[in-house]
Amino acid sequence: MSKTATNAEPTLKPQELQRMDAYWRACNYLAAGMIYLRENPLLKEPLRPEHIKNRLLGHWGSDPGQSFVWVHLNRLIREQDLNMIYISGPGHGAPATLANCYLEGTYSEIYPDKSHDVEGMRKFFRQFSFPGGIGSHCTPETPGSIHEGGELGYSLSHAFGAAFDHPDLIVNVVVGDGEAETGPMATSWHANKFLNPARDGAVLPILHLNGYKIANPTILARISHEELEALFTGYGWKPYFVEGSEPEQMHQKMAATLDSCVREIKEIQEQARESGKWERPRWPMIVLRSPKGWTGPKEVDGHKVEDFWRAHQVPILGVKENPEHLKMLEAWMRSYEPEKLFDESGRLVAELQELAPKGDRRMSANPHTNGGKLRKPLDLPAFCDFALKFQRPGEMYASSTETLGTYLAEVFRRNPESFRLFGPDETASNKLSGVYEATKKTWEAGYKPEDADGGELAADGRVMEMLSEHTLEGWLEGYLLTGRHGFFATYEAFVHVIDSMFNQHAKWLEKSKKEIRWRAPISSLNLLITSVVWRQDHNGFTHQDPGFLDIVANKSAEVTRIYLPPDANCLLSVADHCLKSTDYVNVIVADKQPHLQFLSADEAIKHCTKGIGIWEWASTDKGCEPDVVIASAGDIATMEALAAAALLREHFPKLKIRFVNVVDLFRLVPEDEHPHGLPERDYDSLFPPDTPVIFNFHGYPQLIHRLTYQRNNHHNLHVHGYRERGNINTPLELAIMNKVDRFHLAMNAIDRVPGLRAIGGHAKNWLFDQVTEHVMYAHEHGIDPEAINEWTWPE
Amino acid sequence: MSKTATNAEPTLKPQELQRMDAYWRACNYLAAGMIYLRENPLLKEPLRPEHIKNRLLGHWGSDPGQSFVWVHLNRLIREQDLNMIYISGPGHGAPATLANCYLEGTYSEIYPDKSHDVEGMRKFFRQFSFPGGIGSHCTPETPGSIHEGGELGYSLSHAFGAAFDHPDLIVNVVVGDGEAETGPMATSWHANKFLNPARDGAVLPILHLNGYKIANPTILARISHEELEALFTGYGWKPYFVEGSEPEQMHQKMAATLDSCVREIKEIQEQARESGKWERPRWPMIVLRSPKGWTGPKEVDGHKVEDFWRAHQVPILGVKENPEHLKMLEAWMRSYEPEKLFDESGRLVAELQELAPKGDRRMSANPHTNGGKLRKPLDLPAFCDFALKFQRPGEMYASSTETLGTYLAEVFRRNPESFRLFGPDETASNKLSGVYEATKKTWEAGYKPEDADGGELAADGRVMEMLSEHTLEGWLEGYLLTGRHGFFATYEAFVHVIDSMFNQHAKWLEKSKKEIRWRAPISSLNLLITSVVWRQDHNGFTHQDPGFLDIVANKSAEVTRIYLPPDANCLLSVADHCLKSTDYVNVIVADKQPHLQFLSADEAIKHCTKGIGIWEWASTDKGCEPDVVIASAGDIATMEALAAAALLREHFPKLKIRFVNVVDLFRLVPEDEHPHGLPERDYDSLFPPDTPVIFNFHGYPQLIHRLTYQRNNHHNLHVHGYRERGNINTPLELAIMNKVDRFHLAMNAIDRVPGLRAIGGHAKNWLFDQVTEHVMYAHEHGIDPEAINEWTWPE
Repeated sequence: MSKTATNAEPTLKPQELQRMDAYWRACNYLAAGMIYLRENPLLKEPLRPEHIKNRLLGHWGSDPGQSFVWVHLNRLIREQDLNMIYISGPGHGAPATLANCYLEGTYSEIYPDKSHDVEGMRKFFRQFSFPGGIGSHCTPETPGSIHEGGELGYSLSHAFGAAFDHPDLIVNVVVGDGEAETGPMATSWHANKFLNPARDGAVLPILHLNGYKIANPTILARISHEELEALFTGYGWKPYFVEGSEPEQMHQKMAATLDSCVREIKEIQEQARESGKWERPRWPMIVLRSPKGWTGPKEVDGHKVEDFWRAHQVPILGVKENPEHLKMLEAWMRSYEPEKLFDESGRLVAELQELAPKGDRRMSANPHTNGGKLRKPLDLPAFCDFALKFQRPGEMYASSTETLGTYLAEVFRRNPESFRLFGPDETASNKLSGVYEATKKTWEAGYKPEDADGGELAADGRVMEMLSEHTLEGWLEGYLLTGRHGFFATYEAFVHVIDSMFNQHAKWLEKSKKEIRWRAPISSLNLLITSVVWRQDHNGFTHQDPGFLDIVANKSAEVTRIYLPPDANCLLSVADHCLKSTDYVNVIVADKQPHLQFLSADEAIKHCTKGIGIWEWASTDKGCEPDVVIASAGDIATMEALAAAALLREHFPKLKIRFVNVVDLFRLVPEDEHPHGLPERDYDSLFPPDTPVIFNFHGYPQLIHRLTYQRNNHHNLHVHGYRERGNINTPLELAIMNKVDRFHLAMNAIDRVPGLRAIGGHAKNWLFDQVTEHVMYAHEHGIDPEAINEWTWPE
Repeated sequence: MSKTATNAEPTLKPQELQRMDAYWRACNYLAAGMIYLRENPLLKEPLRPEHIKNRLLGHWGSDPGQSFVWVHLNRLIREQDLNMIYISGPGHGAPATLANCYLEGTYSEIYPDKSHDVEGMRKFFRQFSFPGGIGSHCTPETPGSIHEGGELGYSLSHAFGAAFDHPDLIVNVVVGDGEAETGPMATSWHANKFLNPARDGAVLPILHLNGYKIANPTILARISHEELEALFTGYGWKPYFVEGSEPEQMHQKMAATLDSCVREIKEIQEQARESGKWERPRWPMIVLRSPKGWTGPKEVDGHKVEDFWRAHQVPILGVKENPEHLKMLEAWMRSYEPEKLFDESGRLVAELQELAPKGDRRMSANPHTNGGKLRKPLDLPAFCDFALKFQRPGEMYASSTETLGTYLAEVFRRNPESFRLFGPDETASNKLSGVYEATKKTWEAGYKPEDADGGELAADGRVMEMLSEHTLEGWLEGYLLTGRHGFFATYEAFVHVIDSMFNQHAKWLEKSKKEIRWRAPISSLNLLITSVVWRQDHNGFTHQDPGFLDIVANKSAEVTRIYLPPDANCLLSVADHCLKSTDYVNVIVADKQPHLQFLSADEAIKHCTKGIGIWEWASTDKGCEPDVVIASAGDIATMEALAAAALLREHFPKLKIRFVNVVDLFRLVPEDEHPHGLPERDYDSLFPPDTPVIFNFHGYPQLIHRLTYQRNNHHNLHVHGYRERGNINTPLELAIMNKVDRFHLAMNAIDRVPGLRAIGGHAKNWLFDQVTEHVMYAHEHGIDPEAINEWTWPE
């Protein structure tokens, strides 16, 4: 299977090779300049200490290899008019990407002060890793980037996400051999079982074996060629090897190999598109083994640098202080012959300019890397058509997610090329199987006859299932960043698997939205969290963790939204809103089990639009000042809170209870902290400052305190929530263990309402007996009594 | 390379095979019984609806395959007196593990009411997935388990952790083909490059290809044999295949294959141990392809069940209601011939009892799975010997982690077989390279000559570096759970990669500690978080996330500890304490960069023991009621807070400032919420209820509010912390952006102290000018002015 594509006749003509090499040298010159220089960018005078930056920061190691790849891709784009983008896994090697953006002119178009002249180049160098300037990764400020590469592991899944439903696109992705050791990367090679050659674009991974991480060899660089080849063959790829360090030979090998890869990609796609039939393709990939810090200093002070880990960041240190080192730097930078690459004014010489593709074909300017420009809003059905219908609150049981599934099926029907649903083997488990009426699960691995009965698999399916939250999240991010729409449904406890990916995406969004005007808004990342903490009857303690919301609340208010729809119609309303929105991460928490339903479609729209509100039908305060506010956020928390209110009404018919439900969690926050924050006056009118509030929350109770500690009635706020108590309990027993059940809520209300405690002794005893009885019932029968969800509303 | 070990002569004699098959049937019978029955456990009477549990919960799919493996391992243990443990990747197939625990007698020894008789079996069945009973995973309650398998992905890394430094141990690990799709699992196959055949035990992975997840085929079950073989060969293993469904043939194949594997393991180890020389071994592994739900119902209501995803959980549903299904269940359970397996009293027949190993050799009773029993406390040096010495606070610069490194080197020297340090390619970057004086980095992949100059690699190294936080955390957990000690140092932003692993380990610890008396305490998991948010001068925004502490604070107070040592000597004191402790996750936050040092060794001990305290030398309240409390938690936050206090003293010489530093974060919490919580009186004496407190915190400020909202002076608490503002700033500039810098702190103090605002206008203007000047300086020079850390203490 292994190939080093070599033709009898060299692929590149001598002059072409020479020009490409010169272009590459220009990239390397610029990369070194970015790391070192604040003045004298073209070395028009001998290098002096004052030309050097005060702090030397940046990563040289992978830059030459990455620029090498870029220069070669440029040739293909030019020759074959290809639609290509570039994802830099070792994104900390941003000097390579930035150098190419600059040489292609994109950088100057977006940032005119980084012009193509000596002064522009000086500014370009100086801003790099410089306070007030730009980071040393492929940050959102970097044209052509959809992947920052600050945190490692996600470049390949991002690449696949970009390729889905973009049949003409080839996504080149350089995977660092350090990044290749991460778990998320190690499994994402299997994404080739989910790429449809007729419908999707192609992904061309280039594993960059430059041998070292910060301070260690990499695993893949130190195993045998045979093992390496077996590994990628085993992953289902057809690996090509380009290995060496001598530039001329490497240029020829790379050119020949890329020609082969692109030819194979086209053959695979043409065959599939023409015949409509295919076996899962063995897509080509490239293993590029080149020295770390290639073309840089070979040795410094007697220590090996090129082709060793010492080339990872700044290869020559102490340049400002050490005249020897200064000379070494100058010699190294002059070795690229800048005077032949740039004209007197600092402009790339004309014959090299020709090597860059033009306009949108430039990888630094391809519109797919500014996906908002390509994005078309979804064609969404009227969600009310899918709403549940019932006469009165609490008379109907239904699963919120099941209801959502029927709506999402219609979203699929109306948007056959720009919407996907993601879930780790859990779409059915999460009761979203309604979508299978409209589409199936993407599957390109083998089929068996029995798949026909309930397998729901299809090569052209649009539901993406793989048991890797990392891969799914990466796919979704790549899909959104290139202008499409999606929805990710996952188990609540295990959404923590992607905490860090969420953090990074939120940071990307925040920068893009607030600081980078040229980036167009992309679709929001919609995360449905289900199979929640309160319904883990046999999975138990390990599946009980509602803490993702705490992670979300740490991120910028500009890009985070949290919704806890209390029932199915509210979930529909929230989902509709989220699918229309841009530049957010919308986190929606909704359980999959059947629950009582409360709001009609119209009521749901009103309630969700406000995000927080009084449920008059569950209240007895009739517009007066209440004795107590019972509040809730979350479907199960709401049900228990309603039951608590019913119990209180029963025992204390004159008690003025106000029932408040929160859908949009950030309404609780002061308005100067979050755009959704409720103004003080509105908050106080819902939660009168001197009235006790019993707040039943879906998650960890401290989150509510953290959001509301500045509110006037915070001293009166008593939050119930998950207290990290649990096992394989029945629903009610688990609620009881964490005191989010109706009985504990009612008992707490009796304690908190002035005067009620004195007369409530009997009721409290009765409530306490209920707790014991229900736990005993569960331990005897293995279930909760069926009657627990029957109660009436106030007249 | 591929092998299906088959001998000309069958490995198992007919009678032996027959008995093993009977033992296996007993396992399968028990597994089915656990899922279905609450009465009539031995089917002594025809099955009636009332015998069936009210809710049918549990996972049947992987049970028969897992029991098959266990039964075969028992034969090897018996015949060769092997020291083996078993890790169940698909831990939700607990019925298999539980059945074996029960048959081996371990279960009854620990839980005497689950005795070896009909009534004991009834209780054993009934407790499974039953409220008040045990979960359907290999929870801590399960004898022989160190891996719950609730969250997927970590079984193999746990297995390697268990094998390190246990030269006689063979760790068998069944990896589910669902789990195999996760990222953490996909990279952990590479752990074979870190296992030393002379020093460590062996890991025998058994990839269980049972074909399906909850609702989907698995990737590895649907790729070709050639790809599968190439994949594992590429991962560096020698794969053996045991494939089929006919029991007799499968028994013979499995027996022959396991014989080969154990023989090879022993050969590899003997060769290495005798010669002291070896090439990285290609350790054997097994691919077991058996039907999902093997031996269970083939079809239910016309739908395929065995060998399909429908066998994943409960294969026949509605048994209580549907007489047909009840009959089907009875026929299925009777197909195992329980009357031949158990005697009249319900005891396993004697000839089958003999098949189980005895005493500690039983995998369900191997002491390595109750690691606390094997644990010996570390031999720790007096950390004061490594303490920094200086005359006065703030006169010396040093890196806290560098100081820690010299101490850890001595820990290595004194504990050459039971301590390891873990870090993702960052031990040197995190300035812990002092440890290389005592040991190197474990490395079993290839070497190059240049490694001799700064590579720090060795086959017998004890520093574990791989660019996978998941693998490292899994190794460390496995290492601790089997009775050893460790320390994990990682970048603060990327500790979020293992949020979910932390959650699971904390849950395991909590259950073990609070509810399972037979589990002996294990060493704490010590996590050093460094390369912190405040020093990301070129990595920028993506490397700024101090939110792991919020995750930790959600978990049980029984097992979580957070320390923020303000300087090197405090870090030593904290580390010493943590290395002695058991059953906690200790999270230590300390930056790696050089910082001012404040406390002598003696002072550090006193301060860290209290966990919170007044720094008299930085205070001017001289025992009186202060005008303002300046408080801090975190090294960089402390330095800025001290500088703020100095600025305030300079501008307002009569101001009574109290300086409070917090090392042990949970001191802030009320004492009924956390064992470390400060009693109200003590808290109030530090933070007088009516005195404004300016609190400078390392992390997100809301965490402090969440911990202190019940405290008397909470309305006077003004917390500064990371506000998700950042880029590639200089340290001071980043502090300024987030208002944790000295100037903003001092300005806030002026605003908060009654009366000060009126006279502080000039000072505030000056402070504000400083902010602007320092930002301008950074943007001009790329660095902070060197003089910013020079200030004097009060007389």
